Amino acid sequence: MYIGIVVGSVVATRKNDDLVGKKLLIVQKVNKEGEKLDSIEIAVDSVGAGTGEYVIVTNGESAGYVFGTSTSSIDSAIVAIVDSVEING
Amino acid sequence: MYIGIVVGSVVATRKNDDLVGKKLLIVQKVNKEGEKLDSIEIAVDSVGAGTGEYVIVTNGESAGYVFGTSTSSIDSAIVAIVDSVEING
Amino acid sequence: MYIGIVVGSVVATRKNDDLVGKKLLIVQKVNKEGEKLDSIEIAVDSVGAGTGEYVIVTNGESAGYVFGTSTSSIDSAIVAIVDSVEING
Amino acid sequence: MYIGIVVGSVVATRKNDDLVGKKLLIVQKVNKEGEKLDSIEIAVDSVGAGTGEYVIVTNGESAGYVFGTSTSSIDSAIVAIVDSVEING
Amino acid sequence: MYIGIVVGSVVATRKNDDLVGKKLLIVQKVNKEGEKLDSIEIAVDSVGAGTGEYVIVTNGESAGYVFGTSTSSIDSAIVAIVDSVEING
Repeated sequence: MYIGIVVGSVVATRKNDDLVGKKLLIVQKVNKEGEKLDSIEIAVDSVGAGTGEYVIVTNGESAGYVFGTSTSSIDSAIVAIVDSVEING
Repeated sequence: MYIGIVVGSVVATRKNDDLVGKKLLIVQKVNKEGEKLDSIEIAVDSVGAGTGEYVIVTNGESAGYVFGTSTSSIDSAIVAIVDSVEING
Repeated sequence: MYIGIVVGSVVATRKNDDLVGKKLLIVQKVNKEGEKLDSIEIAVDSVGAGTGEYVIVTNGESAGYVFGTSTSSIDSAIVAIVDSVEING
Repeated sequence: MYIGIVVGSVVATRKNDDLVGKKLLIVQKVNKEGEKLDSIEIAVDSVGAGTGEYVIVTNGESAGYVFGTSTSSIDSAIVAIVDSVEING
Repeated sequence: MYIGIVVGSVVATRKNDDLVGKKLLIVQKVNKEGEKLDSIEIAVDSVGAGTGEYVIVTNGESAGYVFGTSTSSIDSAIVAIVDSVEING
């Protein structure tokens, strides 16, 4: 899982059924100092995240399980909204 | 899942049965500004995508589930055609 | 699996049920010489690891199995605390 | 899945049973222009590929399914030999 | 799967049960010329590999299957010891 910041969203009409009714958010990875990295990803929201919030994203089949199915075409899901980060190392 | 742009296609006669009858599209990843990155991938179309369209790609077993099977040799599938992207961060 | 060093932790109230009651630690990858690399990850602790300790992290569905379930939304788990490393090559 | 070119092969006597009787080919990834990238991988052939041929490689559990088993230790398989590539973007 | 060279080992007392009794080896990836790359990984040995040997490593759930279980927390396993490599491309 990684930490990223929600920087936008995507609208798509022609899409797989698993994505219908889901919020497709654009998440930009951040480093230890909270600075944005180049890498972005489309993650399906599952916790009510919004733009500007720091979130935790899970990938692979683990993301499908977030939505209660083991045969999901979703491979990236937001699983937490970060309240605070403690760095001491 | 990531956003990319369809930049071409591949023809292959000698191939795994799971790929028979499928459109093998070349997708080039894009960054937050929509600019092409170096990385390309072969993704199986599932939504009628064409060259020049921005698409969302899913990977791993999640891609196999797109085609209704949990034992697919496909590990990369186009699952949406992007209508619009909103970036505010 | 990779070696990293625990450099902090994350607090998140709004999160997936699988993360409730779990320690979300920030792990920074290290190279062969034990030097920190840029890449960080959020890994769920399963062995009582603490800040400053070198740990081994597993990813993907393998991480879900650490917590005894094959449908976990967790894709990254700490599975060992390193006592010593021997390098001779 | 990605496109690569077969640049060699590996011989290994002491190996996992799943690899017995399989051709272990070295595949070097290529970019959109067909130029070789640094990254190489060992992929198990499933379509009769040979050195110098452009191929499509699948990864993860999807690679295991190529050989008809859902518990394979193989995580990388050649699933097609490329006849032609059309790039227009 | 990738080729790497065993460059060391790790000792860990506090660890997941799946790792008990297993050899945790440090594998450094190599490129086509056999030169070491920066990337290292911890892989569980399954073929009696030793320091200085070139090996093939598999990742993900495929690594768990090497040890005969489909719910293993191991996501990286050595599945072959390389006898020889032929490069002609």
